[in-house]
Amino acid sequence: MISVGIIGASGYTGGELLRLLENHREVEVVSATSRQYSGVPVSRVHPHLQDTDLKFEDVGAGEIDADLVFTATPHGASMKIVPQLIERGIRVVDLSGDYRFDDTETYEEWYGIEHESPLDAVYGLPEIHREEIASADLVANPGCFPTGAILACLPLVYEKIADTFIIDSKTGVSGAGVKPTALTHYPHCSDNVIPYNVTGHRHTPEIRQELSRLNPVRLSFTPHLVPVTRGILTTAHTFLLEDLKQGEIADIFRGFYDGEPFVRVVEGIPGLSAVRGSNFCHIGCFDVDDNQRAVIVSAIDNLVKGASGQAIQNMNIMFGFREVEGLDFPGMYP
Amino acid sequence: MISVGIIGASGYTGGELLRLLENHREVEVVSATSRQYSGVPVSRVHPHLQDTDLKFEDVGAGEIDADLVFTATPHGASMKIVPQLIERGIRVVDLSGDYRFDDTETYEEWYGIEHESPLDAVYGLPEIHREEIASADLVANPGCFPTGAILACLPLVYEKIADTFIIDSKTGVSGAGVKPTALTHYPHCSDNVIPYNVTGHRHTPEIRQELSRLNPVRLSFTPHLVPVTRGILTTAHTFLLEDLKQGEIADIFRGFYDGEPFVRVVEGIPGLSAVRGSNFCHIGCFDVDDNQRAVIVSAIDNLVKGASGQAIQNMNIMFGFREVEGLDFPGMYP
Amino acid sequence: MISVGIIGASGYTGGELLRLLENHREVEVVSATSRQYSGVPVSRVHPHLQDTDLKFEDVGAGEIDADLVFTATPHGASMKIVPQLIERGIRVVDLSGDYRFDDTETYEEWYGIEHESPLDAVYGLPEIHREEIASADLVANPGCFPTGAILACLPLVYEKIADTFIIDSKTGVSGAGVKPTALTHYPHCSDNVIPYNVTGHRHTPEIRQELSRLNPVRLSFTPHLVPVTRGILTTAHTFLLEDLKQGEIADIFRGFYDGEPFVRVVEGIPGLSAVRGSNFCHIGCFDVDDNQRAVIVSAIDNLVKGASGQAIQNMNIMFGFREVEGLDFPGMYP
Amino acid sequence: MISVGIIGASGYTGGELLRLLENHREVEVVSATSRQYSGVPVSRVHPHLQDTDLKFEDVGAGEIDADLVFTATPHGASMKIVPQLIERGIRVVDLSGDYRFDDTETYEEWYGIEHESPLDAVYGLPEIHREEIASADLVANPGCFPTGAILACLPLVYEKIADTFIIDSKTGVSGAGVKPTALTHYPHCSDNVIPYNVTGHRHTPEIRQELSRLNPVRLSFTPHLVPVTRGILTTAHTFLLEDLKQGEIADIFRGFYDGEPFVRVVEGIPGLSAVRGSNFCHIGCFDVDDNQRAVIVSAIDNLVKGASGQAIQNMNIMFGFREVEGLDFPGMYP
Repeated sequence: MISVGIIGASGYTGGELLRLLENHREVEVVSATSRQYSGVPVSRVHPHLQDTDLKFEDVGAGEIDADLVFTATPHGASMKIVPQLIERGIRVVDLSGDYRFDDTETYEEWYGIEHESPLDAVYGLPEIHREEIASADLVANPGCFPTGAILACLPLVYEKIADTFIIDSKTGVSGAGVKPTALTHYPHCSDNVIPYNVTGHRHTPEIRQELSRLNPVRLSFTPHLVPVTRGILTTAHTFLLEDLKQGEIADIFRGFYDGEPFVRVVEGIPGLSAVRGSNFCHIGCFDVDDNQRAVIVSAIDNLVKGASGQAIQNMNIMFGFREVEGLDFPGMYP
Repeated sequence: MISVGIIGASGYTGGELLRLLENHREVEVVSATSRQYSGVPVSRVHPHLQDTDLKFEDVGAGEIDADLVFTATPHGASMKIVPQLIERGIRVVDLSGDYRFDDTETYEEWYGIEHESPLDAVYGLPEIHREEIASADLVANPGCFPTGAILACLPLVYEKIADTFIIDSKTGVSGAGVKPTALTHYPHCSDNVIPYNVTGHRHTPEIRQELSRLNPVRLSFTPHLVPVTRGILTTAHTFLLEDLKQGEIADIFRGFYDGEPFVRVVEGIPGLSAVRGSNFCHIGCFDVDDNQRAVIVSAIDNLVKGASGQAIQNMNIMFGFREVEGLDFPGMYP
Repeated sequence: MISVGIIGASGYTGGELLRLLENHREVEVVSATSRQYSGVPVSRVHPHLQDTDLKFEDVGAGEIDADLVFTATPHGASMKIVPQLIERGIRVVDLSGDYRFDDTETYEEWYGIEHESPLDAVYGLPEIHREEIASADLVANPGCFPTGAILACLPLVYEKIADTFIIDSKTGVSGAGVKPTALTHYPHCSDNVIPYNVTGHRHTPEIRQELSRLNPVRLSFTPHLVPVTRGILTTAHTFLLEDLKQGEIADIFRGFYDGEPFVRVVEGIPGLSAVRGSNFCHIGCFDVDDNQRAVIVSAIDNLVKGASGQAIQNMNIMFGFREVEGLDFPGMYP
Repeated sequence: MISVGIIGASGYTGGELLRLLENHREVEVVSATSRQYSGVPVSRVHPHLQDTDLKFEDVGAGEIDADLVFTATPHGASMKIVPQLIERGIRVVDLSGDYRFDDTETYEEWYGIEHESPLDAVYGLPEIHREEIASADLVANPGCFPTGAILACLPLVYEKIADTFIIDSKTGVSGAGVKPTALTHYPHCSDNVIPYNVTGHRHTPEIRQELSRLNPVRLSFTPHLVPVTRGILTTAHTFLLEDLKQGEIADIFRGFYDGEPFVRVVEGIPGLSAVRGSNFCHIGCFDVDDNQRAVIVSAIDNLVKGASGQAIQNMNIMFGFREVEGLDFPGMYP
């Protein structure tokens, strides 16, 4: 049993951490922080969590006491909190973008912020970095789009079957966070499909970094907001360098992800509702057209495998728990 | 550990039973039947259940072997299956309307079918009939609307504070089942609110029967289809017979449901997303206007507390398992 | 040809006025005001209006020059603008609640604001006040809920067939206006049904006032937010004072609304998608149950018959144009 | 004034033709056929069209009498109807795929049907074929995806700035027609994004044919079903052959479509809600990333510019009416 704190627990990823940890047998949540809701019962802000007695606290990184802290804080904020936690000997899974990049320049260029406190961190995609995660003090939890996109492309890059990718992603609105904006206003985004940050989304360099570790790639990325609450459907278009058929590509994926606890190579087309609420990534399609363009489709829940579930998976690895502890349940369909 | 069969496992309630039983520690699902999908892996029909090796079987009530069978069959079909199961010593939770009524006449009048094989059954709302459920061989699992409506009215009827109710319910489309119809066609029911069976819905006599056990009621019921996947929001309008304030009504509800594992009396207004995917019923509001009209609002997931979750709760009671086994997780918000 | 100004033209009702007036043959929009967007082309804020050259202006009530002004301003704001316009001889259709009440006390009680400048105004529901509208200088355009509710109850009150009403209304999210809030944040209100102001909504006294002109009523009102962009579906539950059948009630409605250009008594149940984007109010259902409870259902587009369309209908009456000018097109289904 | 018939008038495109023609000043609809609903008032099937007295008739191509007939019939059905109409001297706009291809082989390969009766037809995209349409007896109305895709790519192909395209389209569910299916069942397609016919959609050769008339292209196409009622958002990814900036591409598009009555090159990103219900195609974005990949986004209403509106636009051209007659109103936002 370890003690866990959540800094920034009033948002959606904070709520998901609390929901998922409620049934985790190795963890006790000892602190859930929120400046805005300090003193307010968690059940007021997260209406599904009626059975917790926790109240939000306004506790800083210098006071929080736990074996592990999840920092569910925005980029720019994490870099002010994480170093102090690490210094105090607390292991950290950071859900922001602040520690995801190998080089600070890329971060500063794409995020437009000077990085005050770079630290060594492991990129927390277990399908690539499981071993380093196990011994890491600081894990940078991947972005939601990168999780879906990297898992859809990885086997092809590894096998050098493809090096040019156009990633056309469709995300549910919860990915934009809990704060109301003109973009997420129901009458604006319902019955609509809204491309945004079409060529300049910050997750682009993150996807490129992880795939390029294996082999060079030329990758373009465009996200769309769709009228869906949860989920990211990634359509990866690529031109094959070899003449492969659908079944052969599927076999490559099945071999590559064999034994992975949360990746499933499915028959047919993955659906968002099949992974809803769960930590699974479904991958499928593998169609090839007469232009040698192949299509790989992946589906995740952006708040679970794309954020809080993956953070817990990383924690499980870091502390030697069963990797699936607290996460071994299927998605919710319909 | 008991063995469980599901007759009619390819629909939504069948899928929910399979999803929820996947993590039930006292149960092994030994058979999932479907005539249409006989021989097909369960994972093809229920895309979220990728980790089961079960295949649908076309097995009849005379052959299925299990300690308990869930009959997730339509009304009219259950009455042809259940008697044979009971005769063979198999305990049954029936999810249809066939065994919910004390008197056969009411059933035949509202369902327009002759009842071929009436049997003694216990109405499976644990909040009313927990003790009889424990020893029952046949439990008639409540309808989705009645679950939400009865729980919203019960304390007021018990306390004789109200006897006239107008129940205006709003249901998600999954309540209509897995079969596509003109009503459930996306372009028809999205961006729409559709009253149906406005004064003649079959759940009306079911609600009346259970509330009238306590005290006489005059109750009217109207359901609406709303563009929501899961959930029933019940707005119960009633005229108070006593001059009570909001806080007093809330206290009556809190007292009445004290200790209930799946009923929560919440601050403010219950939301569908707070119970989504879970077996909880949230009840709240309790506002009273200048006409002495009080409003009670309840929220359930129609497929869980309104169907498969409650069926498992009933099974847990029947077999002396922890009542919350397999069901003790919160809803999914957002 | 008259000249028209719109004060507060950047919101949804402003956008609808601009959309609908684009094809009005008797009107030229000479000014569309917005403090926030002063100088910005209308097409930037209202992306559907690409073909207008209008820019928002920051023009006050003292400077605007037009034959008629629509004040699409919030309650509390209109009372500071309207008197000046009237004084300057400009006729006004006010879309706020400021001038809807016969007595200032009711307004002040329900709106919680002191009324600075009461004026004589006509309540702009043509189905009741057509003649007074024709000669009015100030028309108070009805609220969205009252429009749907009053039209659903009016014939029954007139005929003294019913005097007790429970109005359970379901509104699309555009009714909350263009400003993002926690309530209208997509992940919060999608896949949800949210009762609000359950017994205290400001439209309650407005509905009561207009119906009580004919005969006394005891009326309760509860609105719900549903995941719909446009539309209000009103379910009016009432206990009949006479023993009437469905067909008889339908006949009463048909007779009462005979000749009305924008009310249609329909076969079956009205649907939001049948009136979407149009100025029509569809009324139907008329079912009666064994408690003598009758159900009347009405459907309107909250932004058209519930706001801007009705405002134009009022303008047409005030200036002697064809009442349907600019509004004579059907709804958009699906 | 011409007389018009609609064969297959009970579906969504039939309903849209009837809706749009209701205000067309040069047309009288003399016949709306439907085998299934023969004798039924149009207002029963199309609930928004309450003010028409038309009834569906079961009239064949040999009996219908009109100056022009819209055949809103499925592919395979049109080829059995159209030749007879043409022979009888009736001009035809066919909304199916049967007459869209220059060579019968392509049709037969992609549609898997033998073509019984090829005829000379003009592909009814006015932005390419306006002049031939004017004198055509048979116009093959374009598919919904091709309309959005071709208009998004055309200027780049014409200018030889790009020759490789990946078209990732997102369509509303009304594109699947009025018939309920498992795919269009609300609980299945809501809160979901569903790629389908990923590399084999029949609209692929149609898009290729029209673009290739200008210059050779290598084009891949993948459609997705999104939880939207109306609209197609097309994301066209292309690799530029020249080093162009966003503003330069925008200028090319503005020049190319200058004077087009229904194409608007917009600032920013086109939205489905901006064209909803209208015949407009909005085109925008034009972002270029560091891979020289440019993104063009177009938005149409699949039932209007993608079907019935364009059919009326073609009719207007064929008969020398104002091209915008009956169609000159903006989209409906929100």
